[in-house]
Amino acid sequence: TVNGHRLWQSLMDLAEIGAYDDERTGLRGVDRLALTDADAAGRRQVIAWMEQAGLRVRIDRMGNIYGRREGTDPTAAPVLTGSHIDSVATAGAFDGCLGVLGGIEVVRILDERGISTRRPVEIGVFTEEEGVRFGTDMLGSAVAAGRLSPEYAHALTDRDGRTLGGELIRTGFHGPADVHLDPPYAYVECHIEQGPVLAENDVQVGVVTGVQGISWQEITIHGRAAHAGTTPTHLRADAGLAAARIGVHLRSMVDSGAYGELRATVGHLAVHPDLTNIVPARAELTVDLRNPDDARMARAEEDLTAFLRTLEDGTPGLTLATRRMAKTAYIPFDERLQKVIAQAADDHGLEHISLLSGAGHDAQEIAALCPTAMVFVRGEYDGISHNPREYSTPEACAHGVNVLATTLLRLATQ
Amino acid sequence: TVNGHRLWQSLMDLAEIGAYDDERTGLRGVDRLALTDADAAGRRQVIAWMEQAGLRVRIDRMGNIYGRREGTDPTAAPVLTGSHIDSVATAGAFDGCLGVLGGIEVVRILDERGISTRRPVEIGVFTEEEGVRFGTDMLGSAVAAGRLSPEYAHALTDRDGRTLGGELIRTGFHGPADVHLDPPYAYVECHIEQGPVLAENDVQVGVVTGVQGISWQEITIHGRAAHAGTTPTHLRADAGLAAARIGVHLRSMVDSGAYGELRATVGHLAVHPDLTNIVPARAELTVDLRNPDDARMARAEEDLTAFLRTLEDGTPGLTLATRRMAKTAYIPFDERLQKVIAQAADDHGLEHISLLSGAGHDAQEIAALCPTAMVFVRGEYDGISHNPREYSTPEACAHGVNVLATTLLRLATQ
Ligand SMILES: NC(=O)NCCC(=O)O
Ligand SMILES: NC(=O)NCCC(=O)O
Repeated sequence: TVNGHRLWQSLMDLAEIGAYDDERTGLRGVDRLALTDADAAGRRQVIAWMEQAGLRVRIDRMGNIYGRREGTDPTAAPVLTGSHIDSVATAGAFDGCLGVLGGIEVVRILDERGISTRRPVEIGVFTEEEGVRFGTDMLGSAVAAGRLSPEYAHALTDRDGRTLGGELIRTGFHGPADVHLDPPYAYVECHIEQGPVLAENDVQVGVVTGVQGISWQEITIHGRAAHAGTTPTHLRADAGLAAARIGVHLRSMVDSGAYGELRATVGHLAVHPDLTNIVPARAELTVDLRNPDDARMARAEEDLTAFLRTLEDGTPGLTLATRRMAKTAYIPFDERLQKVIAQAADDHGLEHISLLSGAGHDAQEIAALCPTAMVFVRGEYDGISHNPREYSTPEACAHGVNVLATTLLRLATQ
Repeated sequence: TVNGHRLWQSLMDLAEIGAYDDERTGLRGVDRLALTDADAAGRRQVIAWMEQAGLRVRIDRMGNIYGRREGTDPTAAPVLTGSHIDSVATAGAFDGCLGVLGGIEVVRILDERGISTRRPVEIGVFTEEEGVRFGTDMLGSAVAAGRLSPEYAHALTDRDGRTLGGELIRTGFHGPADVHLDPPYAYVECHIEQGPVLAENDVQVGVVTGVQGISWQEITIHGRAAHAGTTPTHLRADAGLAAARIGVHLRSMVDSGAYGELRATVGHLAVHPDLTNIVPARAELTVDLRNPDDARMARAEEDLTAFLRTLEDGTPGLTLATRRMAKTAYIPFDERLQKVIAQAADDHGLEHISLLSGAGHDAQEIAALCPTAMVFVRGEYDGISHNPREYSTPEACAHGVNVLATTLLRLATQ
């Protein structure tokens, strides 16, 4: 068993880096977008903790951080764990951080117990997992796994036009080109569930069977600026109205049930010139679709595209363009690893269920390299996440990291 | 007849102050929001032209500028003309400026012809007519006419929290408290139509019968930030979706025909935290309603309010609050003045029709003080306005200012 108090303290300490007070709710949240000054400060803190725990730290050219505890067999592939510490702009203390700090806590416990393992244990901290600054989620792990190129990633820009490559250099986290993630023997990531399923089933721990498909697109709508008072309705090409219609249509697609368990979110929405008495000339929005079923996801995407065409055809002067931001299929996790995790939960006397992940995770990228699975930790308040209200109890966090520790130890001695 | 070339030159010169190049269309637009540096530069240019034309210039504590050409009878109330030079962020050269520069051109012609009038001729340049920076349109004229207090106006803030009072001081246009608009004998404003009616009827000039009602509200929606991937649809309180529903509902209200000639526009729309994978926690939008019929306007407002309540009732965790930004009833213009304008158009051999104004104008505020009417000038491209494409030909502008000149001369000799 790990030191739950020490784990909790490190979670709370890291949450102070990038912390803000939410006036309306009185809650303290975290705003630590990837490769901002706050994220850089968080990274330095994590590296300090890794070094205190005796890990050898390397940084690759995506700013992914790897901290390694050597094993006894220099030829053995490492067992990898980890996650991310970048956050969305209205985050809590747990998303990603639990996996990173949980990994460090496992190493501390191994050291304290004087346990050495055949395989190295490595902790990965992946860059821009959230995807909200540069537009593609699981970006660092996708590059580490070879699915996306570093050139693609470095050229991505934030809303102010700053490139990811430039921000890596600015923050001092652009590592040398010869640092790579060593092909792991296995990857196990501990993460908060970020949803209500574990609480609804009244269990502490979840064994994750896979991650549902994710589709992110940006839609840019060009219409025509016009006077709100004088322009007859039939002469308008209202880009903002078209954006609103997309949002409402997406919800009706979800409600129709025709796309299985589709979820749809318009998280970003902006209009220009954004003034009271001007019909919007331009609108920009993002569409985040999730579906555990790839065929239904494809149908939802096609039907959305068809809807965009009807908007364009229905209003002279309106044009819509889409840009793909991110796209991942349903990723199943390794069945043998799921059994090892379930066994570890049993060993700790913890009830558990198997469930699919609603959120994307670095694990789904690393799954291309090696057998991969995840441990989920229960959240309070319907598992709300990406919100300062996000909360898992100290006990729930310790339970999850106990399962992680036992799993890693078992794998590292194989 | 006025000097159409000189008038045109002054319109083009003023349009360079705050000019920008629209990359997409290749057009040159004007961005001269009230009391910005660009607006202040425009004001200084107008004052210079006024002084060159021998006008005595005064500025009141709203930054309204009055330039007066004295009459022969020191006891006679002045004939007032004018408009505004502030613009929206995507404007053309004509909206407002035609009335101000047209007034100056009339004075120049009177001087050149050696014509003196019994009544003074005064030109008013009113502050924040557009209402897009501080949220209330026709603001300077509404204060000059006594409908709104200077204290109310000074306390209004822009999106960066800067007060109108502070911006008046910063730009040097906060005049002394003892400067007031002298009660006019009559007010006649020349303005571009900003709509398609004159072109559709193939006439040069419009005699404006009045201004339709205007209702501006800001709606703030509070929902709950949540993870786009993990949060089941039934647990969402999506502030952005509620905003989208309002936009779509407003258009269906317009299309229903149940509110007569209602026009509805959502010009401003923003969501927070505005990130791809977060259900919006908050949304803010403006609703601009127009209606020539006050009773139908009232019904539209009531039905919108009822719709907001159904949104709130339908989604736990969602709250909606409205703030009144501006509200004016249907304002009819003076019938005798309309006849004087129609006669002036006939004198110039110009075909004309009578029409209602779709846009708000300073004239509707000054109408509370004295007999008031307006001359409309035809616009090209369906009369598009609040868009860099806004365009009236040099001939059309000269026609309108000729009608203005003859009307002012006739009134000033009464
Ligand atoms: N775990 C997590 O919040 N990942 C961000 C990517 C996503 O939107 O699912
Ligand atoms: N003429 C004009 O554009 N006025 C601005 C106020 C309005 O929105 O009608």
